[in-house]
Amino acid sequence: MQNKKEVITVIGAGSWGTALAMVLADNDHAVRLWSHNEEQVKEINEAHTNKKYLPGISLSELITGYASLSDALAGIETVVLAVPTKAIREVIGKMREVLTAPITIAHVSKGIEPDTLLRISEMIKEEMPAELLKDVVVLSGPSHAEEVSLRHPTTVAVTSENMAAAEKIQDLFINNNFRVYTNSDVIGVEIGGALKNIIALAAGITDGLGYGDNAKAALMTRGLAEIARLGTKMGANPLTFSGLAGIGDLIVTCTSVHSRNWRAGNMLGKGKSLDEVLDSMGMVVEGVRTTKAAYQLSKKYDVKMPITAALYEVLFNGKDAKDAAEILMSRGKTHEMEDLVNILEERIDETEFN
Amino acid sequence: MQNKKEVITVIGAGSWGTALAMVLADNDHAVRLWSHNEEQVKEINEAHTNKKYLPGISLSELITGYASLSDALAGIETVVLAVPTKAIREVIGKMREVLTAPITIAHVSKGIEPDTLLRISEMIKEEMPAELLKDVVVLSGPSHAEEVSLRHPTTVAVTSENMAAAEKIQDLFINNNFRVYTNSDVIGVEIGGALKNIIALAAGITDGLGYGDNAKAALMTRGLAEIARLGTKMGANPLTFSGLAGIGDLIVTCTSVHSRNWRAGNMLGKGKSLDEVLDSMGMVVEGVRTTKAAYQLSKKYDVKMPITAALYEVLFNGKDAKDAAEILMSRGKTHEMEDLVNILEERIDETEFN
Repeated sequence: MQNKKEVITVIGAGSWGTALAMVLADNDHAVRLWSHNEEQVKEINEAHTNKKYLPGISLSELITGYASLSDALAGIETVVLAVPTKAIREVIGKMREVLTAPITIAHVSKGIEPDTLLRISEMIKEEMPAELLKDVVVLSGPSHAEEVSLRHPTTVAVTSENMAAAEKIQDLFINNNFRVYTNSDVIGVEIGGALKNIIALAAGITDGLGYGDNAKAALMTRGLAEIARLGTKMGANPLTFSGLAGIGDLIVTCTSVHSRNWRAGNMLGKGKSLDEVLDSMGMVVEGVRTTKAAYQLSKKYDVKMPITAALYEVLFNGKDAKDAAEILMSRGKTHEMEDLVNILEERIDETEFN
Repeated sequence: MQNKKEVITVIGAGSWGTALAMVLADNDHAVRLWSHNEEQVKEINEAHTNKKYLPGISLSELITGYASLSDALAGIETVVLAVPTKAIREVIGKMREVLTAPITIAHVSKGIEPDTLLRISEMIKEEMPAELLKDVVVLSGPSHAEEVSLRHPTTVAVTSENMAAAEKIQDLFINNNFRVYTNSDVIGVEIGGALKNIIALAAGITDGLGYGDNAKAALMTRGLAEIARLGTKMGANPLTFSGLAGIGDLIVTCTSVHSRNWRAGNMLGKGKSLDEVLDSMGMVVEGVRTTKAAYQLSKKYDVKMPITAALYEVLFNGKDAKDAAEILMSRGKTHEMEDLVNILEERIDETEFN
């Protein structure tokens, strides 16, 4: 490592925040790992473990737990924000009260806010005063925290409206086990990361119903197509959905036993109710909130999203999962790509020739 | 089913040919299933099974086994060709001797011919005289034969230079369990179907090495990118690689226990030699030949294909699989999509503005 070493604060000591702190420590950076839970902070500092989220893993002594947000942020330039989507406004609200100089925030969450329909970088910019915020960077990709903590090979994408800021985050994180690629499409990276959780829930359902691998591959392909349709209409580069934050993350979330969203869908497919599933998980299932937001986005942008719509009916209107899956499979014969091609043509019509 | 019923000949009674014969029979078409193995023909006609390839499955009485190619083809308009890539020239050579009227061939094989570097539809057109060949249709997609034979939901794409011929094949096969979509990109569908077997071999290797789900998702994403780079340079529509014959088939081949190519790679990753692996499989592993052909294509079209090149070294030059995988993971940091964007820009430069 030839980069300058710095002190970096990671906000949120769940499995992903902790695993990313480990990557930074592997690169010889000092890490302040903030948690609202004082017991957890004590465990991190005394036992150098975080057993609830990463059982069996030892943490570097370069990682220090912090319970005080003002201590954790004092003199810091770069913050990694690793909290569930629904906690972001509250956490930024608290950070804003203790910051005295502007910071760069690299967020690693995956979601869309229901009702406002904002992406996470937009929520951050809305909540944090401009004079306290240098840049927002997004880090996303196929990356189960458990595997990162075991130093298994992993690749992610970073993006920002300011590519120099993205490259700074790339330099902090990159090493032989954790490969970081830049991508200049903020909208695409955030939409891909958020919406793949919907398809993972749906893939869990078809697996729970016993439909098989052919059906699951078809669902993932058509799920990626509907994500790309929406994202492209919102201004994303369609190629992003063929990259790490698109198909890469979709694959790992739909096919790995580590995926919470897939596990939640699997229980739904086996006949459990949404309440029973959420009670039994113990961790946030981002895909449930994201389904609501994506359903609203599909209405706002007038984009066909049949998988999202079917899942919305299952999650929020009590529709039977098997009925929803059968309706999806029996759609009329069509040309594979006509919808995405139409949207691209529309965008070209709107922006370039009129 | 409202379509006219016809008699269709399926050439090749392996697992895929037999499963497709079952789909046609489910749609009330009469099927002549040809095999060079007389014992197998007898089993199909007397026991209505094909135990070696589809154990536990009963075949419809609408499926009749044929050992004589001239009997199987007499008076036939539509032939489904389901033989391994390396047998295609020989089989077409025999068909040509007994045909008396032109036929449409729907081929369902996935490969590229080494040295000639022809796609399968090109091989068919080279080998079959024009006066005996109406149209060539390609049927491809995420479709393990075992699951199709169990009537699990499955989706595939059909394509042809004559879309009316593709739609005819779509009508013959489509039903509630087997959904058929049209796609007008023959090159993309054939390249996607063939080259995914290379990535499945490589994914089997990383799984055999114990690299984990993050690494496998990254490999599949970057594998799809190199397939898209080559295919786009050959004239394919890049969107095809985001569809059923691209990412759909890649997913099912890399993540399903049914996949021979993945299984072969897995054994290589665990330290077996190529000869040991091929001896133990008992069925054709198309990806081995395809790796050679794709390596040659990457040289011919001057396209970067690092996964294909690494696998070529492992399969044909005795390179250690672990060394090859480590070199792949440690490539320098780059922008995710620059290579594909460059190729698209090059193609636009070459074809539209010059």
